[in-house]
Amino acid sequence: MRTVGALVYPNFELLDLFGPLEFFGWNADAFRIAIVAPEKGPVPSNMGPATVADLSLSEADHFDVLLVPGGWGRSIPVDTDRIVPWLGLAASRSTHVLSVCTGSALLALTGFLDGRRATTNKALFSWVEEKRPEVDWQPKARWVRDGTLYTSSGVSAGMDMSLAAIADMIGLEAAKGIARGAEYQWHQDPDDDPFAASALV
Amino acid sequence: MRTVGALVYPNFELLDLFGPLEFFGWNADAFRIAIVAPEKGPVPSNMGPATVADLSLSEADHFDVLLVPGGWGRSIPVDTDRIVPWLGLAASRSTHVLSVCTGSALLALTGFLDGRRATTNKALFSWVEEKRPEVDWQPKARWVRDGTLYTSSGVSAGMDMSLAAIADMIGLEAAKGIARGAEYQWHQDPDDDPFAASALV
Repeated sequence: MRTVGALVYPNFELLDLFGPLEFFGWNADAFRIAIVAPEKGPVPSNMGPATVADLSLSEADHFDVLLVPGGWGRSIPVDTDRIVPWLGLAASRSTHVLSVCTGSALLALTGFLDGRRATTNKALFSWVEEKRPEVDWQPKARWVRDGTLYTSSGVSAGMDMSLAAIADMIGLEAAKGIARGAEYQWHQDPDDDPFAASALV
Repeated sequence: MRTVGALVYPNFELLDLFGPLEFFGWNADAFRIAIVAPEKGPVPSNMGPATVADLSLSEADHFDVLLVPGGWGRSIPVDTDRIVPWLGLAASRSTHVLSVCTGSALLALTGFLDGRRATTNKALFSWVEEKRPEVDWQPKARWVRDGTLYTSSGVSAGMDMSLAAIADMIGLEAAKGIARGAEYQWHQDPDDDPFAASALV
């Protein structure tokens, strides 16, 4: 049994979080889910609907799988002073680290991605890249795996990436079974990135 | 501005709810989101993580867009005694009604779908069909539109359906823009149902 710990913060992006958690949560024998946030209790998303944090940052310092959704982009602020120090330690202590969309921008600020291959939202690619040029940012990738670090492109790409990470952890057939159960057409090729062009403009 | 009211109940399915809400919520000029449940406050999903209801059933009786996620299937109970009477009235008073996955089973119990074309989760198709044979259940459809009623196949299909409903409400280009922004490969053909076969066994 692995614990998937998802970091949330005000203005997290709904599908960045709940797409991956749908797939991890599908197999309750393999994964249990915890939501961690600066404070316990309700945390509002970008779009209004809130989720509820089970743990505050001071109550957890690593997970088997650490998931970092996006939601931070352009004008949406994130309380990086509180989150970044925790995230740097939690990422270094967790077995698998996954980020979705601009979640990789937060993760990059910790230095955890320095010298590693990673990707992010394609429409915000330059904005993310400038935050931490030390990262080997990939402009064309649905998602990137570097060891046990997985970073995905924008929003929906987090679902394809999560199924790939699940396949690496519990097997390809198990991941395919989850996709089939959720009637999800899994795009299995990490290099097939139909939204890459917007990173190049 | 239209209000999207999403009905939640304990054990709702995460992606049935948050896939559609990601896309509706993307355009804050066109849609605002409300979560309604038997009681206000946190409501746990199938997979653990909770959302927070803004309204109890007694505080709302219709929406511009009523969204009914699934989560009820086989052994997972739903408090139909409380939900079904409310849902029958709310569906008849709402302008657009959308259900995802086994959300259509709940909606069918109200009689609102009688004589209308609808679909549901393909792995649970027979289970749903038997609940209300008066519905013209479609075994092969990613989603079905019948007037301003939209019902989708399992879990992920709710995202394709919601983009189609958004296109009908605010235009095809607006819907395509949302899909592009969320880096989502929208399957636009409601008749292309790669999971239909499981409804026929």
